[in-house]
Amino acid sequence: MNPFIICIVTIDDMEKAALIARVLVEKKLVACVNIVPQIRSIYSWKGQIYDESECLMIMKTRRELFGKLQTAAKELHPYEVPEIIALEIAEGLPAYLSWIDESTRPKF
Amino acid sequence: MNPFIICIVTIDDMEKAALIARVLVEKKLVACVNIVPQIRSIYSWKGQIYDESECLMIMKTRRELFGKLQTAAKELHPYEVPEIIALEIAEGLPAYLSWIDESTRPKF
Amino acid sequence: MNPFIICIVTIDDMEKAALIARVLVEKKLVACVNIVPQIRSIYSWKGQIYDESECLMIMKTRRELFGKLQTAAKELHPYEVPEIIALEIAEGLPAYLSWIDESTRPKF
Repeated sequence: MNPFIICIVTIDDMEKAALIARVLVEKKLVACVNIVPQIRSIYSWKGQIYDESECLMIMKTRRELFGKLQTAAKELHPYEVPEIIALEIAEGLPAYLSWIDESTRPKF
Repeated sequence: MNPFIICIVTIDDMEKAALIARVLVEKKLVACVNIVPQIRSIYSWKGQIYDESECLMIMKTRRELFGKLQTAAKELHPYEVPEIIALEIAEGLPAYLSWIDESTRPKF
Repeated sequence: MNPFIICIVTIDDMEKAALIARVLVEKKLVACVNIVPQIRSIYSWKGQIYDESECLMIMKTRRELFGKLQTAAKELHPYEVPEIIALEIAEGLPAYLSWIDESTRPKF
C-alpha cells in the first residue's frame, strides 16, 4: 500500500470548494487542492436523474490521513452524502512526494 | 481488489458526452458521470500529432460492471478506438460507496 | 502491477502545458495528454497559503516509462518542485491500451 493518495470531492459551488480547500490545507489534512470549475454532473438520486453544474476538487495527501480528511470534509460539505473517494498514487517525483509529506505534518 | 472504480472516457462533444452519460446512468451501469468541458487533447494517431478540443468524462461504478460498461460506451461512442480506462477507488466515504452500489443494481 | 498509468502534472500556463505535451508525445514518452484549463489551486508553500490559477495535465503511458517521463517533464517544467504523480490504470478497452503501447514504442 503506497503512502500517498489523491482524494476526489465534488461540490456545487466554487466558493464553497475554495473555503473547504483552504480549511483542509490550513489543518494540514491535505498539501494542496486543485478545483476544476463548471463540470456537468449527471447522476441518479432517489429514482430521479439529475443534470447539474458542480466543481471537482482533487486533493493530494497521505493515505493515513484519509479518515480525518473524510470526517473534516463531510462536516464542511453541504450535501447529505458527498462524494469523497481516494485513489492510490502509484509513483511520483520524490521531491514532490516529500513536499506532500512535510505539508501534512504538524510543525511541532 | 477493491469493488469500486472510476472510469475515464474522452469524447469530442459535450452533448454526446451528456447523452452517453444519461444512457449509462439509466441502464444502471454507472452511478454518476462528471463531464469536464473544453479540455485540450494532444496525441499521436497514425504518425501525426493532433491538438484538439474534447470533454473528459469521469464515471463512478462497481468494478464488476466494467466489461458491460466498456461494451455499452464503445457502442455509443463515435470514435474508432475511444479512451475507456478504469482506476481503482482505494477508499471512500462508506455512505457514498453504498450509494454507488445501490445506484448500479437493478431494482427487481 | 499493471503496465499502464495516467500521469498528472500541474502547471501555471496553457501554452507551456501544450508545449510540454507536444514534446512528450513526439518523444513517445506518452501516447496522449489531456489539458484541463483554468483550475484553481490552493496549497501551502514555505508556510504560506496560495490560491492560484493552473492547468491540469493528464497523460497516458506505460508504467516502465515513468522514470524517463519524470526526468523529461521536470526538465521542461518551470517549477522548482512540480507535481508529477502516476496512478495505475486497473482496466481498459484492449484496443485503447494497445494504442498506448504502440504510441510509446520507437518505430525502429
